[in-house]
Amino acid sequence: MTTGNLNMLQAKQVTVIGTGLLGASLALALRARGYAGRLVGVGRRVETLEQARGLGCFDALTVSTAEALSTAQALPGDQRHVAVLAAPLGHFKEIFEKIAPCDDARLVVTDVGSTKSAVCALADRLLPEPARFVGSHPMAGSEQQGPTAAYAELFEGKPCVLTPEAKTDADAMELIEAMWKLIGMRIIVMDQQQHDRCVAEVSHLPHAVAALLVKLATVDGGAALSVASTGFADTTRIASGDPSVWVDIFDTNRNAVIESVKQLEEELERFRKAVARGDNGTLYRLLTGAKKARDNWDAQRTGKVIGSGE
Amino acid sequence: MTTGNLNMLQAKQVTVIGTGLLGASLALALRARGYAGRLVGVGRRVETLEQARGLGCFDALTVSTAEALSTAQALPGDQRHVAVLAAPLGHFKEIFEKIAPCDDARLVVTDVGSTKSAVCALADRLLPEPARFVGSHPMAGSEQQGPTAAYAELFEGKPCVLTPEAKTDADAMELIEAMWKLIGMRIIVMDQQQHDRCVAEVSHLPHAVAALLVKLATVDGGAALSVASTGFADTTRIASGDPSVWVDIFDTNRNAVIESVKQLEEELERFRKAVARGDNGTLYRLLTGAKKARDNWDAQRTGKVIGSGE
Repeated sequence: MTTGNLNMLQAKQVTVIGTGLLGASLALALRARGYAGRLVGVGRRVETLEQARGLGCFDALTVSTAEALSTAQALPGDQRHVAVLAAPLGHFKEIFEKIAPCDDARLVVTDVGSTKSAVCALADRLLPEPARFVGSHPMAGSEQQGPTAAYAELFEGKPCVLTPEAKTDADAMELIEAMWKLIGMRIIVMDQQQHDRCVAEVSHLPHAVAALLVKLATVDGGAALSVASTGFADTTRIASGDPSVWVDIFDTNRNAVIESVKQLEEELERFRKAVARGDNGTLYRLLTGAKKARDNWDAQRTGKVIGSGE
Repeated sequence: MTTGNLNMLQAKQVTVIGTGLLGASLALALRARGYAGRLVGVGRRVETLEQARGLGCFDALTVSTAEALSTAQALPGDQRHVAVLAAPLGHFKEIFEKIAPCDDARLVVTDVGSTKSAVCALADRLLPEPARFVGSHPMAGSEQQGPTAAYAELFEGKPCVLTPEAKTDADAMELIEAMWKLIGMRIIVMDQQQHDRCVAEVSHLPHAVAALLVKLATVDGGAALSVASTGFADTTRIASGDPSVWVDIFDTNRNAVIESVKQLEEELERFRKAVARGDNGTLYRLLTGAKKARDNWDAQRTGKVIGSGE
């Protein structure tokens, strides 16, 4: 199916800063979807860069953000170029500081960070022209890490939240939207605060809970873990994620995380009291409501028909 | 590989009472592993029995427990026969009451119930010879339900907890152990109270949390669910389980569930306070400990090597 420019990304270079799971998968996905411009990877560690080189999708790999951006500026033509911060949140300040002196009017900056208010505030403070920054959060990932875990389909069919502001350049927004659409993502536009509340509920709180469930199951020296099975495995899978990445996430989304945790504490207390008084009606309504909401959500997400045991 | 009697089940009939996901999968698995005796399914609803018939693994299907057990008694030979309660916990009292008048000295009774203290107390009270009852909890399941979701490999490689008591007949215990081993389960022996505490931690609490996470994510009218992705899907998968089954489980494991919920409330409060004071060291230690424990558990469970992104 040829759709003219519909699925094209009009950028002469995409500079992916951070070539871990997300950055390397982005490069693989852009290539797989026919992006014809230059793809440059920037990494801190030579070992990671070598692994990224093995994927065969980058035109160049370097430890220097300045070098990567200057090659884009030297390319012929007046197309724009994109820099994507795909490193852990804890490195964002340093990366913005490295981008700032290399900025040019054709550069559009975005990121893959899991929190947005803090990231957008950093961009506002550190970039010479924050209007050409568009906050992105592709809701894709894995408990696996590094370029060796990367794959082109990681983003396909998943939501990508963009958090533009009134000052955001419309062309910059359009370009970043085109990039995520090209690799199969569904675009959702929210303001930063709403994004941060939403991800606290569906990502950050579940992550904290997964880690705490594992902790509780290990207290008795392993007896509980010995009887754990697939349900526990699914519920706690995300607890195998990179701890330092998640410390950064909790740290940069403090208020929304605190609020979500508080709400769960209240719900647990309510649940516990219903169990204690044998209030099976309340438990049944809770479980039925949750089942219905989850089944509907899953059906929408996957295109599955809600069915009878298939 | 022929191993003589090692993997054989010396029982002339297995009566599976309840032909839903677990009961029907048990029958499929016994047949797949070469069990040569008679397999009878007992169900309450004709529709379910017809679906079970379609699986082709049952010799007979009936709505009558008495009929099923009397056919076993009429079979030639002095081998024992087994009745397995594979219905929801809420039906156990009625089923024990139906088994009681049909009891014979060659009958061994077991179950697949998710809680054990309450079930074993029922067996003690209602069966004429509780020494020939062995509490079982095969840790296998799915959020899917019914015979159409059944498959022979459901139990393979998963733990099965047996909770014999001092009074339990040794031959009965051996027979039930042989049955679960035949279909590939790892046997774990615990007392009823320890079992109930362990499953509260690794199964019942995670289930409650999954339902509550879904509830919290739906409060704002769907914005949070619109950005939810694979992590949320995994963490909440079990919330799609059958609500009435889970009400029974919470109801019959009240004290252990209350205790586990309380512990999680305390852990959440501790976590929340660490986030509030920016104590990233504490968060890092929590996440690192949980990751390590989960990775080790998962490696043991699946035989995977803990590795680098593969």
